[in-house]
Amino acid sequence: MDKRTHAGTLTEEHINQDVLLNGWVQKRRDLGGLIFIDLRDRSGVVQVVFNPAISAEALAIAESVRSEYVVKIKGKVVRRDDATVNEAMSTGHIEVLAEELIILNKAKNPPFMIQDVTDVSEDLRLKYRYLDLRRRTLQETFKLRHQTVQAIRNFLNDEGFLEMETPILTKSTPEGARDYLVPSRVHPGEFYALPQSPQLFKQLIMMSGFEKYYQIARCFRDEDLRADRQPEFTQIDIETSFMTSNEIMEMTENMMKQVMKEVKGIDISLPLPRLTYDEAMKRYGSDKPDTRFAMELVHVSDIVENSSFKVFQGAIANGGTVCLLNVKHQAASFSRKDIDKLTDFVKVYGAKGLAWLKLENGELKGPIAKFLTDDEKAGLIRRTDAADGDLLLFCADQTSVVYDSLGALRLKLGKELNLIDESQFHFLWVTDWPLLEYDEDEDRYVAAHHPFTMPREEDLDKLSTDPASVHAIAYDLVLNGYELGGGSLRNYKRDQQDKMFEVLGFTKENAEEQFGFLLDALEYGAPPHGGIAFGLDRIIMLLAGRSNLRDTILFPKTASASDLLTDAPSEVSLNQLDELAIQLQEKYEEKREL
Amino acid sequence: MDKRTHAGTLTEEHINQDVLLNGWVQKRRDLGGLIFIDLRDRSGVVQVVFNPAISAEALAIAESVRSEYVVKIKGKVVRRDDATVNEAMSTGHIEVLAEELIILNKAKNPPFMIQDVTDVSEDLRLKYRYLDLRRRTLQETFKLRHQTVQAIRNFLNDEGFLEMETPILTKSTPEGARDYLVPSRVHPGEFYALPQSPQLFKQLIMMSGFEKYYQIARCFRDEDLRADRQPEFTQIDIETSFMTSNEIMEMTENMMKQVMKEVKGIDISLPLPRLTYDEAMKRYGSDKPDTRFAMELVHVSDIVENSSFKVFQGAIANGGTVCLLNVKHQAASFSRKDIDKLTDFVKVYGAKGLAWLKLENGELKGPIAKFLTDDEKAGLIRRTDAADGDLLLFCADQTSVVYDSLGALRLKLGKELNLIDESQFHFLWVTDWPLLEYDEDEDRYVAAHHPFTMPREEDLDKLSTDPASVHAIAYDLVLNGYELGGGSLRNYKRDQQDKMFEVLGFTKENAEEQFGFLLDALEYGAPPHGGIAFGLDRIIMLLAGRSNLRDTILFPKTASASDLLTDAPSEVSLNQLDELAIQLQEKYEEKREL
Repeated sequence: MDKRTHAGTLTEEHINQDVLLNGWVQKRRDLGGLIFIDLRDRSGVVQVVFNPAISAEALAIAESVRSEYVVKIKGKVVRRDDATVNEAMSTGHIEVLAEELIILNKAKNPPFMIQDVTDVSEDLRLKYRYLDLRRRTLQETFKLRHQTVQAIRNFLNDEGFLEMETPILTKSTPEGARDYLVPSRVHPGEFYALPQSPQLFKQLIMMSGFEKYYQIARCFRDEDLRADRQPEFTQIDIETSFMTSNEIMEMTENMMKQVMKEVKGIDISLPLPRLTYDEAMKRYGSDKPDTRFAMELVHVSDIVENSSFKVFQGAIANGGTVCLLNVKHQAASFSRKDIDKLTDFVKVYGAKGLAWLKLENGELKGPIAKFLTDDEKAGLIRRTDAADGDLLLFCADQTSVVYDSLGALRLKLGKELNLIDESQFHFLWVTDWPLLEYDEDEDRYVAAHHPFTMPREEDLDKLSTDPASVHAIAYDLVLNGYELGGGSLRNYKRDQQDKMFEVLGFTKENAEEQFGFLLDALEYGAPPHGGIAFGLDRIIMLLAGRSNLRDTILFPKTASASDLLTDAPSEVSLNQLDELAIQLQEKYEEKREL
Repeated sequence: MDKRTHAGTLTEEHINQDVLLNGWVQKRRDLGGLIFIDLRDRSGVVQVVFNPAISAEALAIAESVRSEYVVKIKGKVVRRDDATVNEAMSTGHIEVLAEELIILNKAKNPPFMIQDVTDVSEDLRLKYRYLDLRRRTLQETFKLRHQTVQAIRNFLNDEGFLEMETPILTKSTPEGARDYLVPSRVHPGEFYALPQSPQLFKQLIMMSGFEKYYQIARCFRDEDLRADRQPEFTQIDIETSFMTSNEIMEMTENMMKQVMKEVKGIDISLPLPRLTYDEAMKRYGSDKPDTRFAMELVHVSDIVENSSFKVFQGAIANGGTVCLLNVKHQAASFSRKDIDKLTDFVKVYGAKGLAWLKLENGELKGPIAKFLTDDEKAGLIRRTDAADGDLLLFCADQTSVVYDSLGALRLKLGKELNLIDESQFHFLWVTDWPLLEYDEDEDRYVAAHHPFTMPREEDLDKLSTDPASVHAIAYDLVLNGYELGGGSLRNYKRDQQDKMFEVLGFTKENAEEQFGFLLDALEYGAPPHGGIAFGLDRIIMLLAGRSNLRDTILFPKTASASDLLTDAPSEVSLNQLDELAIQLQEKYEEKREL
């Protein structure tokens, strides 16, 4: 009996069997001359009993045992007394009667208890990440992460994809987010960059004739961090040759179906719904709509364009829009003061205010009612399908402000009014994205996705004349209001790509210097190609039902990009810098000397 | 018929079927009014025929087609005339009669032909890596790499391992090889380091209670490069809790067995042979012996210690050794001049010379024969089991010089005399490695593997008194003379690890500053743990039967750590450096301005 048994797997089937357990002491209780230990290993927890009648020696050692001690226990599985059965534990009908106890390693009193729910500060938990990770909830999250990744791989392997590794030490191409740089010792004065994504390499893999590539790829962005951003993150990176955008979407939704089935046991039905970007904005005020609840934006410009309410009139006259949300059955619950608070909320999104009406006894009432004709009121009721007790919240402004404001308000109300069934997983595609967006700071168009995205063929003519109106062959997969990932077909002809760089304001020399190798490769038999990339960390967050991206990353960094466990980044020796031919800027040099 | 067929999969079974092909033009031949194209895709090559009787239009387009054009072809599979059957091709019994041809993308004349064997310079091939990768041999290598990685994953998943990701942006710990550094924008004056291996994190994962971890991990070492080194490389990284070194070795040899079976169709028999480090050195003069051939070192110090040959006498008197190789049946093939060349060869390894004897008609002949008594000669013949026609090559020196010299000479002769069956895969374990080695430059002991390796229990007493004699619970897996990987049990108690740092010359403060987080973790319930790591790139090199590590890495760097394709590393904008609070050293700043 030298083979180890796992604590959490023991059941009544094992009664009378000898077992050897290794694990951690979850807690110890002394009771009536006996000692009880909850022994925890990766598989779960089992109760171990030390009884002087079985082994006085083991009992004596057990007395010295504390929480988080690492122990080895030999014993026998026995049935618990009916009175002590614990239905909440999978091992709750049995316990292990200990015959031998060896302390493998002691533990100091941990700075916080290892338990599912904790109110300890995140900073302390990150500093002692190895203790935090012992908690059941995090153990489960990383098992789920493992399962998810294997399910994805199994699917892609079966589809004939090759898993391939692209470099981490690459060339800096400043278009896009900020690069992390790595000084070169062999080439003083020169730098590698850590990849923001394997975009260029995955395209080169297509030009290398591999046709189907994937990678679970680490990516790096030196951006200012938000709650859901990390300096390094993991991307499921996929690229194919000779496939249409429809084929790529179908293939990846089959992948998601398999993941949901294997990991969550949930059947999602295919094909997934698709919305164009324009439609998503129009209906949900969002490019990643949460479709677990309705309350879509209602467009009423045509109804109120001649109303005497100046705000409506003015917005429409200026080329803007009037939309509303019909908040069903909530007229009575929202006081004027409550609505004022919603007004403050939408102001963050640029709206100047919220107008409102309530339907009571078949009549629209509220401050703006007096500005509306009976026809207009009837039109609104028809269009919104409003019923008594409904609250209508209007926003009138530039179209983008209306969408942003009501889109955000819709989400806020959806959550606060419990309109969302949290057990649901609503996937959908958002397609036909704008190719470009205007960057006010740089006073030029920048790529909405990246500069290699292919425009829709029917929009090619407008690339020079009306760039803002050009749509891309690009698609994002959205789940419950989060963007899981996105992709596109890529420009595979040199002249297409040259044209794109021109629109982005690159000189020929500039494009050549940064992306010459890719432009060259387009001229040596580049196949039509396209792909998609998913944010793995976020997928795990949603599948695990967590709200903090850091809970899905084994050793995450804080919002200021620090690893509190290892204390990275940190100072290094001047000797190391010297070898790399770099030095600190003077003020930091001085600071260091203090 | 819109579904794509793959060129290389077509056989006589498909005759009369309509097919749609996508791929590259391997070559075009015009013959008797017909055009023949070899069409290549990932799956292989098929011959396509353009016949004016089938489609004059397709034939006309085919006339404009050149090598590496990307095309789409519709046609019908037909049987070839007996006269044109090509048995060398899997598709050699059929061809595709083209009905339609679309040029998807043109190609300039490539700088080299896409063919299996090439004599083009490696630099040119690396610059146009996407063309080089289209060659069948490299396509096959990366398929094999994919298969190998999946076989490893499948095995480890079945064994209950969790695949987990450790950070790339970590803390610099200068013990060991040189770190690549990454300046931090958020923390000016501080740096991340790229990991040389996930060693510390994998140990922390054990302290986090996950028990079985693996990762196909990218590692980075800023070392001076040799033919078989790359700045970034991939490691199969494995760590377990509660397992003995024997259990870890058994588990990983089962893994290798499965890989060999799935990838190469070869059955290797287990358990694999094991040699201690001392035994390997003694018998093969190498810590990674190639056991595909014998010709072991023969130890003869005891036989010749009293001989009148001063070189033997002196070496032994100075505590050294006399060993020889018996080169069977080669006495006649090696002239005095040939042996002089071997002497030059061993001088590189520190030997002062090679003595030699030949056995002819039952008698040992050669320059040193006169110094040996008949008893000594008889002793040598018995010990070496020499027969007429054998050549004995002696080395007498410090033991390490004798081992290095004869170890290298053994390999050289093994290759040159064709003693090695290249179709064989000989695995073996080398165990019980020295824990420490003396670093002359630093005038201190350094860790032979890394500072976390556990000493053998029976050697613990010698850690302070005789560090050089302490052996570790460490094991390397060797294949055909290459180290595939190695591992060890780790120190899991704080006092063990403190002691090790002390022997390595660390002050308490120093150890705390660099490794404090690990030392702390050892005090909060660290389980006994150990693991192993394999160099994936080298495994692929050996399984693919290649000799250049760069052929196993998709986008490799040169010996000067450059990527010739993307031109990394490269200069970056001063603005980028400024944001990172660093500057170039003055001389490079000046160089830049020129």
